[in-house]
Amino acid sequence: MNYFEEALDRHSKTKGKISVECRMPLENAEDLSVAYTPGVAQPCREIHKDRDKVYEYTSKGNMVAVVSDGTAVLGLGNIGARAAIPVMEGKAVLFKKFGGVDAVPICLNTTDTEELIRTVKLLEPCFGGINLEDISAPRCFEIERRLEEEMEIPVFHDDQHGTAIVVTAALINAMKLTNRKMDEINVVLNGPGAAGTAIIHMLLEAGVKHIIACNRKGILHQDAAGELPIHQQELIKVTNKEGRKGTLKDALAGADVFIGVSGANILTQEMIKAMNPDPIVFAMANPDPEISYTEAMEASVKIIGTGRSDYPNQINNVLAFPGVFKGALQVRAPKITGSMKVAAAYAIAELIPESELREDYIIPSPFHPGIAAHVAERVAAAAVDASE
Amino acid sequence: MNYFEEALDRHSKTKGKISVECRMPLENAEDLSVAYTPGVAQPCREIHKDRDKVYEYTSKGNMVAVVSDGTAVLGLGNIGARAAIPVMEGKAVLFKKFGGVDAVPICLNTTDTEELIRTVKLLEPCFGGINLEDISAPRCFEIERRLEEEMEIPVFHDDQHGTAIVVTAALINAMKLTNRKMDEINVVLNGPGAAGTAIIHMLLEAGVKHIIACNRKGILHQDAAGELPIHQQELIKVTNKEGRKGTLKDALAGADVFIGVSGANILTQEMIKAMNPDPIVFAMANPDPEISYTEAMEASVKIIGTGRSDYPNQINNVLAFPGVFKGALQVRAPKITGSMKVAAAYAIAELIPESELREDYIIPSPFHPGIAAHVAERVAAAAVDASE
Repeated sequence: MNYFEEALDRHSKTKGKISVECRMPLENAEDLSVAYTPGVAQPCREIHKDRDKVYEYTSKGNMVAVVSDGTAVLGLGNIGARAAIPVMEGKAVLFKKFGGVDAVPICLNTTDTEELIRTVKLLEPCFGGINLEDISAPRCFEIERRLEEEMEIPVFHDDQHGTAIVVTAALINAMKLTNRKMDEINVVLNGPGAAGTAIIHMLLEAGVKHIIACNRKGILHQDAAGELPIHQQELIKVTNKEGRKGTLKDALAGADVFIGVSGANILTQEMIKAMNPDPIVFAMANPDPEISYTEAMEASVKIIGTGRSDYPNQINNVLAFPGVFKGALQVRAPKITGSMKVAAAYAIAELIPESELREDYIIPSPFHPGIAAHVAERVAAAAVDASE
Repeated sequence: MNYFEEALDRHSKTKGKISVECRMPLENAEDLSVAYTPGVAQPCREIHKDRDKVYEYTSKGNMVAVVSDGTAVLGLGNIGARAAIPVMEGKAVLFKKFGGVDAVPICLNTTDTEELIRTVKLLEPCFGGINLEDISAPRCFEIERRLEEEMEIPVFHDDQHGTAIVVTAALINAMKLTNRKMDEINVVLNGPGAAGTAIIHMLLEAGVKHIIACNRKGILHQDAAGELPIHQQELIKVTNKEGRKGTLKDALAGADVFIGVSGANILTQEMIKAMNPDPIVFAMANPDPEISYTEAMEASVKIIGTGRSDYPNQINNVLAFPGVFKGALQVRAPKITGSMKVAAAYAIAELIPESELREDYIIPSPFHPGIAAHVAERVAAAAVDASE
């Protein structure tokens, strides 16, 4: 199947992917008087008296806004808010299909950070959570941080944390297969943008001690801090504890894990030879990974993960975000904390029983039964733990 | 049935009234690759090349935002954005049930006019139309005017124009039953707020020549213009051409039609006696009308309309807004013009064949078959006429 042609065909036939439906009977005048005037005045009065009742009488508690400004859409870049809609509608239908969560695409006609923050805050009444999507770095960090601080409902930038959760889940299972422990491995991450930065923070939260981050110029190191954006300066404080310098190849000497969220063909077979035995390579650049699946196989990589659906071990955000929001909404968590994200990663990892783990099966398929329910349960439990 | 208790019960059972559903298959990995990555990139690219394609590949063309700030909700007043949600969800489900239009409640956490305008403008990418709802006067006039000027998609304040369309439809049929002509009747409107102002402008557009507007102090007259809000100053220029002064009772001398969008029990039987024979009374204050149905009957009113579902001739906005938006969206009208609104009124009126018109049946029920389709057809035709 040519996905591009088929996508144009299907999107054109249905004119988009989402609809808004009614969940209350509307068959006669009495129904109308209950769902609308005069009856509807009563839930309004109750919410006016007790603002928490909004979760009892409205759809807010299961409703997420999928917010984008279209500045970093897939691999397409800054294509604008209108052109981003098909992706946001896609996200919305995945929320429903996999998590039973209602989601509304909100593509905003601004790229001004302050205006975006102000606008999303004003949308709070109708929504139980905010999923930020395809917003360019480094603006996405500030936008997420401010919204988390200033809103009462959970805010989650999926390009960062969804990816980080699934990478962590895959790594948990890769550790089991190669008899490694989180606090012993050496990890090299190439591409410390939105996803890369979140992956590093999450791996630290999950117990990894030794991480080196590389950008196009090589290892992130204190000496070059002045030239770097703030989020990378922060990374320097928590990575590269030995103070190593050099190229990606230098970084990989003695590494157990390579994580790429960068660009095509950056990783060579020669570099892999410098890694420890049984190396793990997650080459997630899309559509062309940091090293092709075939080349990585030839270089005797033990476990290979990619972002592509046509190879094994696809690192796919859809494993995480429906369950993460479902769990957060269930317990009305005000934030999605680090421990909730780690709980999500372990939940995804343990969906594959250890007896079934294989080098080409460390991560379940999106259609694995019960993913979101299981992730939600663990995320909700972690949220409740944190609030006690 | 106690509508208030039943409303609490039903709203609590379903936790709100709306859901977001998927209109494209999502059963396997191929479906996922078409609705989401990688396939979805292709509709994005096409829209990026040609912004009009957003109507071909996304849900925008049938998607309306139901926007409120909760400042004038039903008869409850300024109860805030959260407490307004049950009404906006109700509106959304009526849009779907009666018009097949998808609608999303957007309750904004601000009552600042400029901030509200700015925010709604930023929402434009995902929506094909904006339905403003329950926003207090006189702010609603400025907000609607500015959004109409500054947005590419139709903007419609239903409390104004929905009411005006249905009143006009009712009046068209009342004229038939009493052998009157639009340009000959004397109309008195009591309560020139949001709905009242729109009704006056619409009746003028529909051919009525003689209208007197009254507020709490009596007839709106040039001498008192200085004290009045701008929208009422504008009304003085187009009403009360004889320059009459005095009370509501004075205004009603020689009137054919009383239209009340004001408060309970303002109209007495004695005032009605001052009106012309076969008077028409639309007493739409809710829940208690300007004169009770029984009292109006006793005063020999020929045709009585109210806002209530438990009496005949209910002036109900749901007869108008689903079809108005359906028609405007069908032809992608950039605005909902005066002639489109008049076309909607005639469309509603003509749903009752003249042979079936009765004094207590001048307006169809919301469940009359085919209302929205018929209204949409006439509205779309009027939009196309205007653009030629």
